[in-house]
Amino acid sequence: MKKYCFGIDVGGTSVKCGLFTTEGEVLEKWEIPTRTQENGKHILPDVAASILGKLEEKNIAKEEVEGVGIGVPGPVNESGEVPVAVNLHWGHVCIERDLGEMTGLKVKAGNDANVAALGEMWKGGGEGRRSLIMVTLGTGVGGGIIVNGQVIAGAHGAGGEIGHAHVEDSISDPCNCGNCGCLEQVASATGIVRLAKEELAGTKEPSVLRGKHLSAKSVFDAVKEGDAAAIRIAERFGGYLGKALSVFAAVADPQVIVIGGGVSKAGPILLDYIVKNFKQYAFPACKETEFVLAKLGNDAGIYGAAKLVL
Amino acid sequence: MKKYCFGIDVGGTSVKCGLFTTEGEVLEKWEIPTRTQENGKHILPDVAASILGKLEEKNIAKEEVEGVGIGVPGPVNESGEVPVAVNLHWGHVCIERDLGEMTGLKVKAGNDANVAALGEMWKGGGEGRRSLIMVTLGTGVGGGIIVNGQVIAGAHGAGGEIGHAHVEDSISDPCNCGNCGCLEQVASATGIVRLAKEELAGTKEPSVLRGKHLSAKSVFDAVKEGDAAAIRIAERFGGYLGKALSVFAAVADPQVIVIGGGVSKAGPILLDYIVKNFKQYAFPACKETEFVLAKLGNDAGIYGAAKLVL
Repeated sequence: MKKYCFGIDVGGTSVKCGLFTTEGEVLEKWEIPTRTQENGKHILPDVAASILGKLEEKNIAKEEVEGVGIGVPGPVNESGEVPVAVNLHWGHVCIERDLGEMTGLKVKAGNDANVAALGEMWKGGGEGRRSLIMVTLGTGVGGGIIVNGQVIAGAHGAGGEIGHAHVEDSISDPCNCGNCGCLEQVASATGIVRLAKEELAGTKEPSVLRGKHLSAKSVFDAVKEGDAAAIRIAERFGGYLGKALSVFAAVADPQVIVIGGGVSKAGPILLDYIVKNFKQYAFPACKETEFVLAKLGNDAGIYGAAKLVL
Repeated sequence: MKKYCFGIDVGGTSVKCGLFTTEGEVLEKWEIPTRTQENGKHILPDVAASILGKLEEKNIAKEEVEGVGIGVPGPVNESGEVPVAVNLHWGHVCIERDLGEMTGLKVKAGNDANVAALGEMWKGGGEGRRSLIMVTLGTGVGGGIIVNGQVIAGAHGAGGEIGHAHVEDSISDPCNCGNCGCLEQVASATGIVRLAKEELAGTKEPSVLRGKHLSAKSVFDAVKEGDAAAIRIAERFGGYLGKALSVFAAVADPQVIVIGGGVSKAGPILLDYIVKNFKQYAFPACKETEFVLAKLGNDAGIYGAAKLVL
């Protein structure tokens, strides 16, 4: 094993970059803008230039670098190709081949949610484990599933697309994916706002949430204040997510379930609502599955990308 | 790779045995009774005696045998141990160690449903694939999930326990697992009878099913005759199973979904009801996932067990 590696996390507005030791210590982190114009054709050259520039700046020879791992917001097949990545304005891109040619380094690519799961397993909430389900509760619900240390990428690049598990028949407006009733529609930051609006419209009961800007944060802040309506919203959220996770556990049976993303800033109280419902519905052998909050925050992607190449 | 291997499938009443070439050709199949008395202490010695007898009968030297794969009705951990197997009256049994000592051969053990999935991938409905979900619709609903050629056994031995995914809030009588509303309660042979009773009790409409012995077979025979009540029962069955499979696919995203077990004898019409609902709820990238009927029937277990050791 050589001494260094890079972890690159390509987002729709910026590319997060990390120079790591192959032991997993981050030596330097930086960002560059994601230039999505002209079908995103500048993105990989920009990343390559940034990597080569960092090697020069640090006086590191390519021979000392194990390789470059890169996470992208789209499906990545076994050949390291992306059929399409909407947020990057990409059509078909051969990431591993192209970035490899541009840098002269070994490149491994993966889906960003799967890569974040790998990061949390390597140096985050799931450190030391071999199997986990990572749930990222942000604007959407992302997922990454690892079994025996390997990410489940899926035959159609859809492994761990748990945000689009169907959980509610009564929703008739479509999810971003085109289906109706996805987990993402009730358990993401926007999903929690949906539940809050429904709850507040359904009663005239006083609540600290009335008249406030509704967000996952304001709802869980109100839960901490003991607001009854907010607690009912949290119960519904936890019911959907805990029950869905119990089903995912009947498939993948992980050692640990890691909850991350912006919504997870609510802290341990969030886990309380999820775990209670998980326990009710989980197969008996899985009821004691451990739940932890993610630890790496926005850095999970660069850690996991670095791990990809090791 | 040596020339021969054994595949053993231990059931509650009989042990199915197969002598295979390591290419996957079955040379001979036979059964011995499962003696569950005295905490099942005779089961492994009986299996060992049967294997050693077969070697003698066929004049095969142990040096020509790659090993013995064995599937058992219970969870099997990474060390080849079973914590408990109710149907065999077993407490903790070190299968791989004990059967290995008794036979002088390498032994690999696995859960029977997972092993059957491996068999269908090796020589059955999923032949040539690397990832699949196998669903066995019998008295219960069994499952086995394979990703990149590896069975997902699970951190608690519950990988692929998809029969115990929660799918219905309104069921208040408990499943064998102790929870309420499991897939097994609505999609197994007994689950279909439950749906049939509910459907027939809910209307006074004439149906060929009235007065008949209700079974999965009688329901699907009536579907083939165009019986309206039977068709509604099949729709509900397909709704539960298709929707649940769409959720499992959002986790594991397999190349193919294999439907086996006694209920699958209804044939392709069974798939029609499942696939229609699967397509409605599946994540777009997974909607065209292939569905096939299992091909190996009761032999899936011995094939998969043989494959375990290769």
